[in-house]
Amino acid sequence: MGKIRIGIAGYGNLGKGVEMAIRQNDDMELAGVFTRRAPESVKLATPGVKAYRLEDAKDMKDQIDVMIICGGSATDLPKQTPELAKYFDVIDSFDTHANIPQHFQAVDEACRANGNAALISVGWDPGLFSLNRIYAESILPNGKTYTFWGKGVSQGHSDAIRRIPGVKRGIQYTVPVEDAMEQVRSGKQPELTTRQKHTRECFVVAEEGADLKEIENSIKTMKNYFDEYDTTVNFITEEEFDAVHNKMPHGGFVMRSGMTGDGEKTHQMIEYSLKLESNPEFTSSVLVAYARALKRMKDEGAVGCKTVFDVAPAYLSPLSGEEIRAHLL
Amino acid sequence: MGKIRIGIAGYGNLGKGVEMAIRQNDDMELAGVFTRRAPESVKLATPGVKAYRLEDAKDMKDQIDVMIICGGSATDLPKQTPELAKYFDVIDSFDTHANIPQHFQAVDEACRANGNAALISVGWDPGLFSLNRIYAESILPNGKTYTFWGKGVSQGHSDAIRRIPGVKRGIQYTVPVEDAMEQVRSGKQPELTTRQKHTRECFVVAEEGADLKEIENSIKTMKNYFDEYDTTVNFITEEEFDAVHNKMPHGGFVMRSGMTGDGEKTHQMIEYSLKLESNPEFTSSVLVAYARALKRMKDEGAVGCKTVFDVAPAYLSPLSGEEIRAHLL
Repeated sequence: MGKIRIGIAGYGNLGKGVEMAIRQNDDMELAGVFTRRAPESVKLATPGVKAYRLEDAKDMKDQIDVMIICGGSATDLPKQTPELAKYFDVIDSFDTHANIPQHFQAVDEACRANGNAALISVGWDPGLFSLNRIYAESILPNGKTYTFWGKGVSQGHSDAIRRIPGVKRGIQYTVPVEDAMEQVRSGKQPELTTRQKHTRECFVVAEEGADLKEIENSIKTMKNYFDEYDTTVNFITEEEFDAVHNKMPHGGFVMRSGMTGDGEKTHQMIEYSLKLESNPEFTSSVLVAYARALKRMKDEGAVGCKTVFDVAPAYLSPLSGEEIRAHLL
Repeated sequence: MGKIRIGIAGYGNLGKGVEMAIRQNDDMELAGVFTRRAPESVKLATPGVKAYRLEDAKDMKDQIDVMIICGGSATDLPKQTPELAKYFDVIDSFDTHANIPQHFQAVDEACRANGNAALISVGWDPGLFSLNRIYAESILPNGKTYTFWGKGVSQGHSDAIRRIPGVKRGIQYTVPVEDAMEQVRSGKQPELTTRQKHTRECFVVAEEGADLKEIENSIKTMKNYFDEYDTTVNFITEEEFDAVHNKMPHGGFVMRSGMTGDGEKTHQMIEYSLKLESNPEFTSSVLVAYARALKRMKDEGAVGCKTVFDVAPAYLSPLSGEEIRAHLL
């Protein structure tokens, strides 16, 4: 059987991560990268593979089994995923939770009109965290689910800091409150406010002569981003910033605290956690595993838009049914 | 739509747990309990539901959608599951890992000869832990998986203690070694021996006049059960035994430590854990959620033996596809 031929649409951190993840899977190969930049300016890591203009992707529809779309959720994916789903079986990591139903419908229509299949919102949240929510809530119907994020870099909050006058460099870490997690683990099922669940740590390199007090105040009082949190602002040198804050770690926790048995008095606790040195590389690894699943489901006749909820776990593994029953069950 | 009608075959701790779990799910009802004991001696907790002789179960095949088989893996399930699969769609929690392929085949043949569907080895290990192994290994192909069990009661080891002359009561807890788990969490991918991963804690009530030194020695040197572990033996009074050691807690951890990215230098850590006050009640809750899945898969035409690997997560939830995308993704 031939290898699964993967296309990458968008060659930023996520696209590069997908390229690396494909190398870790013997049953896959990179067929091409599609970019909005000048293709000749894009240097790929995979020998013999070329970059093409994104608008020319459709000419290669017979050479690609699954197109992994690596754009951003704000403006790229709402357009790119339905457009590319006309020609390809596609996967994206769309993560604007509130707009998922709308995105699902747009992608589903494009798929069905063209006999293609898609998986949207694949990654870790949405994605693996969503899986843990559905498994845990289905198994423990009487209970409460908690999601904590971090410690990790929030791109949105880092961008918000960098828009403040006087800020030269800036990064924001979301930090889960250990005491809140311990309360949940104890089986107490506490009601937790936004402030009680997470703190926000900012590291800022200020422009020369900038008013540090004012920067700190602007951050801490920023509506929707920081005002509901306990926020700390640390001013550091550019050297320290480059040496220490040059990575994109992230992670988090999904916990379900539930009650079972006669009178529902027995505590049961399910906890899932991720500790990621690189958020984009991990998301890429999830996308690539689901590309395998999508190819198999398509081969069995699947059409339309799906999510991780619709994918039986066996489809993700390169092993056969017999092998997974013998070694993983 | 009518409720999903569940039958319970075997009314021990697990069967009673299933009865309680059904109450937590509005879309299900208990249709009957099937037992090898005298049915009139079995007192059910559910008003209006009766106990029947196990051998009469087949007469009720039109009144039951899914039969949950709650026998033991050693001698009950290898016979009961293939037998009942002739008449019913069935689920069991068969957990003798080495014999799963053989059990799968026997159940699959019985199902296919009669147009039925089955799910075997449903619970937490095998079951939820297996799911976490397949997800984590598919996503991080370059890595190492670790499973730790406990702290929790091992029935097999407790039984082994109780067979020693002079032992009146006995219970054994499997305890994961915290230091070993911390090594894994650090990303080191250590090679761990049996002794390094778990310790065994025994609590024993001795018969009057028994030789405590000899009991302790018999436990610690017992082949296959204790000789490869650091074991502690505590002699306690019967009062303390009844007060403190009257529950069946369990749990454990599945960890995947993997590497991604250029040169595979980036650490990524996935961890799943359970902390269960009652092992049988939790296993029951898993069985009941998968009964819903099996009913739905059967309604869509599924035939033959399946495992948790074959079940798309959406089938477990009572919510619709739209609801889970809006609220859980």
